[in-house]
Amino acid sequence: MRMSELSGATGIPVPTVKFYLREGLLPPGVRSGPNQADYSEEHVRRLRLICALREVGGLSVAEVGTALGAVDAGHASPVLGKPVEPPVSDADQDWARGRVLELLGPGAAGPVVANLVAVVATLRALGHEGVIERLAEYAALARATAEVDAAVNAEGDAETALVTALLGERLFAGLRNLALVEGVSG
Amino acid sequence: MRMSELSGATGIPVPTVKFYLREGLLPPGVRSGPNQADYSEEHVRRLRLICALREVGGLSVAEVGTALGAVDAGHASPVLGKPVEPPVSDADQDWARGRVLELLGPGAAGPVVANLVAVVATLRALGHEGVIERLAEYAALARATAEVDAAVNAEGDAETALVTALLGERLFAGLRNLALVEGVSG
Repeated sequence: MRMSELSGATGIPVPTVKFYLREGLLPPGVRSGPNQADYSEEHVRRLRLICALREVGGLSVAEVGTALGAVDAGHASPVLGKPVEPPVSDADQDWARGRVLELLGPGAAGPVVANLVAVVATLRALGHEGVIERLAEYAALARATAEVDAAVNAEGDAETALVTALLGERLFAGLRNLALVEGVSG
Repeated sequence: MRMSELSGATGIPVPTVKFYLREGLLPPGVRSGPNQADYSEEHVRRLRLICALREVGGLSVAEVGTALGAVDAGHASPVLGKPVEPPVSDADQDWARGRVLELLGPGAAGPVVANLVAVVATLRALGHEGVIERLAEYAALARATAEVDAAVNAEGDAETALVTALLGERLFAGLRNLALVEGVSG
């Protein structure tokens, strides 16, 4: 199909499609004339995925590029989430690291652990330690949720891992929010 | 304290503090001279909260304004999350609405429900229906998580509700991600 048809099939305007091509998020079509290229169903799928990651997943164009690069390379567990750098004191940061390592074991490391430490330090700095007191309960529920995620993606497909993590997070947050509101009002 | 001290106490640059004052996120200080105002510990706390919502919660300045406006008005459950509008077909949208109402009951409505429908429709459009097949399992875990949230904020404080929802979401996503990676590799 032509670019105008690709745009029609996905509802994504031609200038946006061209932008994704330039940014390398969308692979080029097969050249079919001096100023024309042919696009396939695979392009339709890819465009829908890009759009879902941006609109639903809330990723920036650069983050979509990184995430899709990891998927294309077959990484089943792309690292998600930006580094979190709240302005907290060293004391709060050290205290938070202690709580997180207490929970996860002394060997825990990496960007996700660093983000957890930053979130816990921020909660302490703001005086909202109630969440931290129940860290073990949240961790147990997160493990149970990850078991469902693992069952959803038993084959360890990279794109499924990405979509499940990102859209699954939005889904879970919505369900949690609804349950909380119902619990409060009902 | 003066603005320079407020900046020093929070690590937030003076131009950023001025910007938050102009945007109305930070209440003005008490005028103490022709070109000077006095700020309190309450301003330090508020600045830290703004920064946490932006850096850790990922909110835009406008979203922080809306969220803090709700907190100031004493709303214990500010609506979170932007409307999600992925380009999905009406058929996928209708199918998704059916699944969500099946789960939540025919009376379910509102912006959070609309977002859930949009996420489910996107998952179907992308061909990742595995997540949807386990919607009831995710919903049960989300309810259990919301019970912990409710216990954390038993008094129904508006700021606690906001911080718990937003930072708690980041915390849970990190714990879930870690558990998934460990489960895959271990």
